[in-house]
Amino acid sequence: VSAKPCNVDDVEALAREKLPQWVYDFIAGGTEDELTLRANRDAFQRLVLLPRVLIDVGHIDTTTDVLGHVLRMPVLLAPAGSQRVMHPEGEIASARSAADFGTVFTLSSTATSSIEEVAEASNGPKWFQLYMIGGRPVAERLVQRAEEAGYQAVCLTVDSARHSKRERDIRNQPPFQAEMAPRNFEGLLDYSQIAHNARVTWEDVDWLCSITSMPIVLKGIVRPDDALRAVEHGIRGIVVSNHGGRQLDGTIATIDALPDIVGAVNGRTEVLLDGGVRRGTDILKALALGAQAVLVGRAYLWGLAAAGQHGVSDVLELLRYELEIAMALAGCPTIADIDASMVRR
Amino acid sequence: VSAKPCNVDDVEALAREKLPQWVYDFIAGGTEDELTLRANRDAFQRLVLLPRVLIDVGHIDTTTDVLGHVLRMPVLLAPAGSQRVMHPEGEIASARSAADFGTVFTLSSTATSSIEEVAEASNGPKWFQLYMIGGRPVAERLVQRAEEAGYQAVCLTVDSARHSKRERDIRNQPPFQAEMAPRNFEGLLDYSQIAHNARVTWEDVDWLCSITSMPIVLKGIVRPDDALRAVEHGIRGIVVSNHGGRQLDGTIATIDALPDIVGAVNGRTEVLLDGGVRRGTDILKALALGAQAVLVGRAYLWGLAAAGQHGVSDVLELLRYELEIAMALAGCPTIADIDASMVRR
Amino acid sequence: VSAKPCNVDDVEALAREKLPQWVYDFIAGGTEDELTLRANRDAFQRLVLLPRVLIDVGHIDTTTDVLGHVLRMPVLLAPAGSQRVMHPEGEIASARSAADFGTVFTLSSTATSSIEEVAEASNGPKWFQLYMIGGRPVAERLVQRAEEAGYQAVCLTVDSARHSKRERDIRNQPPFQAEMAPRNFEGLLDYSQIAHNARVTWEDVDWLCSITSMPIVLKGIVRPDDALRAVEHGIRGIVVSNHGGRQLDGTIATIDALPDIVGAVNGRTEVLLDGGVRRGTDILKALALGAQAVLVGRAYLWGLAAAGQHGVSDVLELLRYELEIAMALAGCPTIADIDASMVRR
Amino acid sequence: VSAKPCNVDDVEALAREKLPQWVYDFIAGGTEDELTLRANRDAFQRLVLLPRVLIDVGHIDTTTDVLGHVLRMPVLLAPAGSQRVMHPEGEIASARSAADFGTVFTLSSTATSSIEEVAEASNGPKWFQLYMIGGRPVAERLVQRAEEAGYQAVCLTVDSARHSKRERDIRNQPPFQAEMAPRNFEGLLDYSQIAHNARVTWEDVDWLCSITSMPIVLKGIVRPDDALRAVEHGIRGIVVSNHGGRQLDGTIATIDALPDIVGAVNGRTEVLLDGGVRRGTDILKALALGAQAVLVGRAYLWGLAAAGQHGVSDVLELLRYELEIAMALAGCPTIADIDASMVRR
Repeated sequence: VSAKPCNVDDVEALAREKLPQWVYDFIAGGTEDELTLRANRDAFQRLVLLPRVLIDVGHIDTTTDVLGHVLRMPVLLAPAGSQRVMHPEGEIASARSAADFGTVFTLSSTATSSIEEVAEASNGPKWFQLYMIGGRPVAERLVQRAEEAGYQAVCLTVDSARHSKRERDIRNQPPFQAEMAPRNFEGLLDYSQIAHNARVTWEDVDWLCSITSMPIVLKGIVRPDDALRAVEHGIRGIVVSNHGGRQLDGTIATIDALPDIVGAVNGRTEVLLDGGVRRGTDILKALALGAQAVLVGRAYLWGLAAAGQHGVSDVLELLRYELEIAMALAGCPTIADIDASMVRR
Repeated sequence: VSAKPCNVDDVEALAREKLPQWVYDFIAGGTEDELTLRANRDAFQRLVLLPRVLIDVGHIDTTTDVLGHVLRMPVLLAPAGSQRVMHPEGEIASARSAADFGTVFTLSSTATSSIEEVAEASNGPKWFQLYMIGGRPVAERLVQRAEEAGYQAVCLTVDSARHSKRERDIRNQPPFQAEMAPRNFEGLLDYSQIAHNARVTWEDVDWLCSITSMPIVLKGIVRPDDALRAVEHGIRGIVVSNHGGRQLDGTIATIDALPDIVGAVNGRTEVLLDGGVRRGTDILKALALGAQAVLVGRAYLWGLAAAGQHGVSDVLELLRYELEIAMALAGCPTIADIDASMVRR
Repeated sequence: VSAKPCNVDDVEALAREKLPQWVYDFIAGGTEDELTLRANRDAFQRLVLLPRVLIDVGHIDTTTDVLGHVLRMPVLLAPAGSQRVMHPEGEIASARSAADFGTVFTLSSTATSSIEEVAEASNGPKWFQLYMIGGRPVAERLVQRAEEAGYQAVCLTVDSARHSKRERDIRNQPPFQAEMAPRNFEGLLDYSQIAHNARVTWEDVDWLCSITSMPIVLKGIVRPDDALRAVEHGIRGIVVSNHGGRQLDGTIATIDALPDIVGAVNGRTEVLLDGGVRRGTDILKALALGAQAVLVGRAYLWGLAAAGQHGVSDVLELLRYELEIAMALAGCPTIADIDASMVRR
Repeated sequence: VSAKPCNVDDVEALAREKLPQWVYDFIAGGTEDELTLRANRDAFQRLVLLPRVLIDVGHIDTTTDVLGHVLRMPVLLAPAGSQRVMHPEGEIASARSAADFGTVFTLSSTATSSIEEVAEASNGPKWFQLYMIGGRPVAERLVQRAEEAGYQAVCLTVDSARHSKRERDIRNQPPFQAEMAPRNFEGLLDYSQIAHNARVTWEDVDWLCSITSMPIVLKGIVRPDDALRAVEHGIRGIVVSNHGGRQLDGTIATIDALPDIVGAVNGRTEVLLDGGVRRGTDILKALALGAQAVLVGRAYLWGLAAAGQHGVSDVLELLRYELEIAMALAGCPTIADIDASMVRR
């Protein structure tokens, strides 16, 4: 695996060599029996493509719009905390890579770099992911800081009312490390006070909309009725997500949940997806089934762990290269050409 | 596996270290090719969950009613004989654990502790499982004793007209051990007379109803027509069960049999289920498909074998913890919130 | 595997220890990629059973009628040549075992014992399996001899117009052995003249019906239209068979082909089945889907190879024992009670 | 594997022994995760056959017509470049074998023997496969040369707008070898100028039709709408193909794509198929689902690598022998007898 990685699996292998086992497991693992972790990948692989031929694909345009912003490709960086444990530069490296590449970096509430540090390091498009830990006052302070720092959206994670049983982590008993401390809560909450907030409801969503001019994206929806409810609450974007198989084990694979949700919202909100995206063809499949874009988590974290900012960039270029080939071979010169006829179960 | 077990599989591993192989096999094994043993687990894992989000799950209430009694969670201890072979305290330990926890212990006809011993040791809710070995006179005596001792229901097992071919046991040729002798039949039947009764019919069910004020639960039903017949005979509860894959090999997985039965009885009797329950999410799936509660057998027996009464308690607490997390992450603060929309095949 | 075998797999293991590899492979193998060989077993295992409860199964009656003859159980011995290579007593041992047990022995055209030798050795019910090698004159002579010797039916194999590519045999290059020579053709054909007859048609079937008073059974049908055609030609019985996966690789599993054929003939001919029967529950499944009885081939040949006549008897008793348990646990005291509701895909 | 090969897998094993690993991988490999490579084979194996019985199959006629030419069997040699890397005689050996056998050899644009060399060496039926590398002028020159040299059709590959990511090749970094240089482009393009042409469209197809009297075959169609469009453009034949799993990974298995395409074109163009054909029964399945014939690629290349022209002939004879047996056992004396009732999913 010492040669140049030619796919994301190779990058993961490089990262695994560098990381302590517990960090590797922290990234790679899912919850309980890891049914959903595997299901996310398997469901992508069960979908088949029906490429169209004899289209001029001499120029492939992978750019797309997400929430009114142009991205170089329909792939965003998903929120993920604790990145300094993976690489000394942590979220700073990831954010810079996203900016250089031309896509959104989503900063986690529990990041090991603060809202302001990331904003200072990167002037690319940034979203702020919010856990409502500490209730409305803390959330309000975080959202204000993100808005002031130039973040462009708030991504509220809604699938994490409770800590799930990630059994790899339970067995590994990760050592406490100072660099793991979430930086955003300094002055707001002690490290010991940081815990999931199980009481967040649609009323909090309305409140959140009321305190910021940034659009709100809800991440962690797998049900059409919840997606419709998001539409009713004026939500601009949702992420079909099961937290990468890290929250409720047995949750439906995201790519399997996507079509009903796209059908239900019928264009009234943008539908993104994460979970199991490892190949350009996965992106093509998700877009064919109606996603506006996808988010990648583990894929870029392997790059970060393997080689810092350059590693993240390598992963993004790999995915873009694979997507470009996939679009060309599928007869889709632009993102708009990727339609439902491209994919079959 | 020497660390604290973090799931039921870990507890099984601990038990396996302690038990002679033949006892391990006696508990773990199924009949013939063990198709149904595996199918029970596989069928649970094939079901996917569709969690609901943005519900206040700050307080999760796992309590439920079964036959009019409040249980701390919708999990009962299934009948299982020969428990003194697994641990010196046998059924006493299991019954005490159930009582401490707040759920039903079901004492097997072929238990190695008697009806009265268990009643004396535990004042928790108890059911008595009946095999009609020895015909009506013996059954009547057993039922009277159970009623006098304060048991609250009779659970008649109806899937065991004959000894099945449990090939692990046939190969292991378990040594005879005095502590394996069923205690309930002392004075009623010789050990050598204890055999399955293949002649039990619906008339015996009616007779059984007539001799006791305790509700009768039929355990071992997988067909909607049999479930309907139970309703016609005034039965208060049924257990969708294939005896944990230990009787007729090839029998439908219980979770696959459940929906048609729930549909057929349409609320006129309580429908319980056992077979393959290992995770809190399994409980959630069974309830979403219409079960009132589930019974666990092997799961708690591994706890008994590993650590006696404390081991059983550990398993019950594990399951409750997993169920609580599953309910929270699924957006179901109470058992009543778990509906059919939570699960999909 | 030195203990008493508790299932047919055990008997196969015993046989394997005794047999030269090429004989083991000759029995165990299928054609080409052995897709159908595996499919026959897999298809049985994919069917699930729905046992009925609270039926008096104190007495189980496994007897049934096939072509007007009462058999002790709905299992016949399928035709199989070359049995002296498997055990010195060859077909004689198998025929005697069938007679002692109370079921039909089907003598192969290419048996290593003659029609008359088998008739002399066994007065049980016997069928004669016919390949029309050598055309009508040879066939007529064989059929006459069978009729004179008291055989009760002619079983014409119709799935073997050509030698298939059994690659295990091609690789093993079985040594020529004098005892492999088919005995029935002595005086009729040289060993070198014995070859498949690719020209047999429905006209030959009519001719065959015209030259004997024995009923004709067609073995090797998997299509409803062919089954209907058999009905039109006045055929009394058909065997849904793919020659145990030894002829056309990829052929549908017999238990999957059965229901459409049963539906098509609608009782106008008796429908038997072979292919993949290893357990009492397999027999139950086949009968539930409409078979009148099944034939076993490899199952009894493993018994023959392991222990001669006693080995065959052990296998038959094993299957009967398993069938009896399966019927009891399924709530079917008689063969007539086994209906379509017992099984589901 | 030193004995005479009895199937294509054996031939592959022989070839593997002889070839450098990178050449073996170049032939055997697919693109990216090789999902489609495996799917092509798996999809054939999931189809089951329903053989018809009691048909006179004493004479089997495997001849068929493709584009008005009689072939000895419905199997053509697919285009494949670089054959001199596999065997010193390269395409010459393959073309001669096809001619001797009595079927079509399709010469690749990127062959290591020129159009004229192959025509000189073989007077059998030949097609010329075209990549429009270098645009219309180069294509026109190649097509003219093919027509002058007596080729009978032009096979335009339409699934290869771009180089795909064949990761085995990327990892192996094949050494440059002079004999790999495509011969057809000498004097037309430098080796360094040879690249995919991503701009080919249906207009180029019309242009191609206009410059030659040879029929045009489009290879690489998996969508019914593209097949219909081919009909509208007057195309005489299409090949349902995913380039043997070497172009867009995840593309539908060809045998799964076939039925809808056959239904759509409804006889207005000839439909061929390649991808995953390894057995006579695969050919039977493809024809039953409506293919006029199949093309084999890897299958004959293994023969070429193992033993040159004789090796290719061995593979063709193997396939013909298997097809003949399959037709006989399926009750199909002629190709016209192979109908849709022969196969079921």
